[in-house]
Amino acid sequence: MSTDVVDLAEKFELFSDLWSPKLVARLNDYEVKLVKVQGEFVWHTHDDTDELFLVIEGTLTIQLRDGDVTLGPGQLFVVPRGVEHCPRADGHVKALLLEPAGVVNTGNAGGDLTAVVEAI
Amino acid sequence: MSTDVVDLAEKFELFSDLWSPKLVARLNDYEVKLVKVQGEFVWHTHDDTDELFLVIEGTLTIQLRDGDVTLGPGQLFVVPRGVEHCPRADGHVKALLLEPAGVVNTGNAGGDLTAVVEAI
Repeated sequence: MSTDVVDLAEKFELFSDLWSPKLVARLNDYEVKLVKVQGEFVWHTHDDTDELFLVIEGTLTIQLRDGDVTLGPGQLFVVPRGVEHCPRADGHVKALLLEPAGVVNTGNAGGDLTAVVEAI
Repeated sequence: MSTDVVDLAEKFELFSDLWSPKLVARLNDYEVKLVKVQGEFVWHTHDDTDELFLVIEGTLTIQLRDGDVTLGPGQLFVVPRGVEHCPRADGHVKALLLEPAGVVNTGNAGGDLTAVVEAI
């Protein structure tokens, strides 16, 4: 991770694994992460924090228990703390995440998709 | 401001004033703002917080006392707390800002360019 200019397109070229957010910038005690996703994640909740999704490429569906939210490029959505959600992408999606440092991608669910965040 | 999907392009259509950030989303105690800029701002410092700039359209120069940072679309930069900076745009620029709620755009400098943040 650099403290210089972060070029999102260049950063996305540096990894290919899915559902594994990469740290690209820090803002106080918050982290900006990039993630590539395809398929369905796991239903989970972050009890202590909101979570921001900004889609850079593709179409991301954030399934909520009371309906789906669909995001295309240049669209963002904040999942409120405590709200169960499950991201799903039928195609390949590039997205930017913003949340406090230390948030685990699978929230309260855990499991095989839990990622260790690497800085790139 | 909506708690639903935020479409950045649609939000940018809603205002035309320069150097006057508009609130489009909240994430915990942080705020996502959109701003249109052209020309030169004022040199200022945020003593208590980092500040993130993500350029959506155009080319933004963030002047620092030890050199300039130039950002194009899809590029972001975090100005560390306490670092004096002065944004400048030769052309028209659309940018996304991220910082804690309550941060004043002119920081410690104040003056005529100090904006009251409106939610859109």
